[in-house]
Amino acid sequence: MLTHSADLRRYLTGFSSTFGFVYTDAQDSVLFTDPRYAEAAKAALKKTSVAVEIAKDLDTVLRFVKARKVKKLAVPFERITVPEYEALAHARLRLVDSSRAFAEAMAVKAEGELARIRRASSIAEQGYTAFLNELKEGMTENEAAALLEYKMRTFGAEDRSFETIAAFGKNTSVPHHRSGDTKLACGMPVLLDFGCKADGYCSDITRTFLFGQKGAPDDFAEVYEAVYGAHMAALENIRGGMTGAAADEIARGFLRGKGLDKFFTHSLGHGVGINIHEKPVLGPSGKDVLRDGMVFSVEPGVYFEGHYGIRIEDTAALSGGKAQSFMKTEKRLTVL
Amino acid sequence: MLTHSADLRRYLTGFSSTFGFVYTDAQDSVLFTDPRYAEAAKAALKKTSVAVEIAKDLDTVLRFVKARKVKKLAVPFERITVPEYEALAHARLRLVDSSRAFAEAMAVKAEGELARIRRASSIAEQGYTAFLNELKEGMTENEAAALLEYKMRTFGAEDRSFETIAAFGKNTSVPHHRSGDTKLACGMPVLLDFGCKADGYCSDITRTFLFGQKGAPDDFAEVYEAVYGAHMAALENIRGGMTGAAADEIARGFLRGKGLDKFFTHSLGHGVGINIHEKPVLGPSGKDVLRDGMVFSVEPGVYFEGHYGIRIEDTAALSGGKAQSFMKTEKRLTVL
Repeated sequence: MLTHSADLRRYLTGFSSTFGFVYTDAQDSVLFTDPRYAEAAKAALKKTSVAVEIAKDLDTVLRFVKARKVKKLAVPFERITVPEYEALAHARLRLVDSSRAFAEAMAVKAEGELARIRRASSIAEQGYTAFLNELKEGMTENEAAALLEYKMRTFGAEDRSFETIAAFGKNTSVPHHRSGDTKLACGMPVLLDFGCKADGYCSDITRTFLFGQKGAPDDFAEVYEAVYGAHMAALENIRGGMTGAAADEIARGFLRGKGLDKFFTHSLGHGVGINIHEKPVLGPSGKDVLRDGMVFSVEPGVYFEGHYGIRIEDTAALSGGKAQSFMKTEKRLTVL
Repeated sequence: MLTHSADLRRYLTGFSSTFGFVYTDAQDSVLFTDPRYAEAAKAALKKTSVAVEIAKDLDTVLRFVKARKVKKLAVPFERITVPEYEALAHARLRLVDSSRAFAEAMAVKAEGELARIRRASSIAEQGYTAFLNELKEGMTENEAAALLEYKMRTFGAEDRSFETIAAFGKNTSVPHHRSGDTKLACGMPVLLDFGCKADGYCSDITRTFLFGQKGAPDDFAEVYEAVYGAHMAALENIRGGMTGAAADEIARGFLRGKGLDKFFTHSLGHGVGINIHEKPVLGPSGKDVLRDGMVFSVEPGVYFEGHYGIRIEDTAALSGGKAQSFMKTEKRLTVL
């Protein structure tokens, strides 16, 4: 097996690097890295079974592979470009796709991985709590997003896990709004979708609240209660052995009962790990079967175009057949 | 021509989007986008010749292409994965690679693009100046990097143009150091490599300074002067018609004269535009010929492993056959 993707290198070796290849077979695991990173890699991998070799390019790695008389090589087709594929094919190796095997293996987390996601969740919430104390009228979405990212890092985040979404007022009705110049004013709904990385692993959380009651949409509290109900119904009723589609239907069915399902325009959730989007898919056509050790977001949302939107999201792990949220911050309707 | 890469969509339409395809032929340019983004795209592209169509997937786009009796289709092979290539090949189109054509066209900037890079450079420097006022003893690299990113955004940056590098003390000797838990103390060299995006375009800048004189490396000022000399020699002597290799040699030759060339372990620079790394390559094997309208970094650096490193970088444009820096902040040795 051979890969040059940063996330798969991290997964296979536990070591974060900006360049390199990992080769594994029945006997060995080898991280090929640039001479500049070799010392750091050797020190970090000293207590593991991963060997470190020097390689500046694919050709060097392929010479190593050929020397082992390898004939069939698994590579993740979804991570390699056409010229990269051609270089591998040129080496007269029979190539098979490992994309799916990786996605399935990475979906189920080990204890150490769960601990990292727990820490990334805790840091994100500490940053969020500190951020709320500094959020002010007149601040732009862009400033708010940047401030929240800064706060997470002061609590020890390595980085954000994705570009923070800060949406104010009617911008909350766009599920993936790009934070812009809109300024915060009294009565606006505020939607924040954010997360951070700790030791290579992601967290993902969304909170929606009102910045003052005066001028807020009339039906906000009522709709919020419905989204909260859908979120809690999913967290409480998701079970091991269910498909992602069945999990999604718990929240979607709840919203259907309130006549709001047609405004829930995306999936319930997605796996979270080294990458912010992994298996399983929790959505209407999600075929993945939920198993202990899987970590996923639970994020029902309702969006009234041009008016406002509400989303409530936790990252949760399946443990003992039930979903356990990593999050502790308030989820009931909040008016700042 | 067909592409689904975000940077190429931005380049071809001037409109930033998170999902979509662009098809162009001799007659037309069409942006295919998700129904959710269609209204925003139509509004933004009203005054252009780019039409907007709805497509949720490649199949819809391919039906449009086939209806036009297209037989040969250019796609950027370097941007598509193996399964994507297979989907295109399955449509019985003769595929040709447009990667190089894009890279070459994007390397030469139009006036509007230069104005955006100028703005991204100015914002980055405003953020940096504000950041310097808040940098304190005891701050970690990670906090410093996050604070600098935050400051750039308070001055109007859309986002960082890449993950900010903040390196303190001996970490400055690692050209691509990952900001970590090292705390700022008196006498430490500080290296900051950062930039931001304005209206889709990047800036890139590096400054190295001393945080107090006491405890600083003895030869710091002398080596700084050499790197500064190499940086200025390159900025002053780069000319249109030169290759990237010849440009690189100006700085490398200067450092050779000081006996420091073997510590200059990377290339002089790279093109900057919608992407942080574009053509031309300014390095020992750089074959690109420099032309008016090209924008590139000029970033000589000297690194003493385990001791310290110094890099000085501006983003510059070639205009009237000469390099014009976009940067205005201090480049002479600074002791904070």
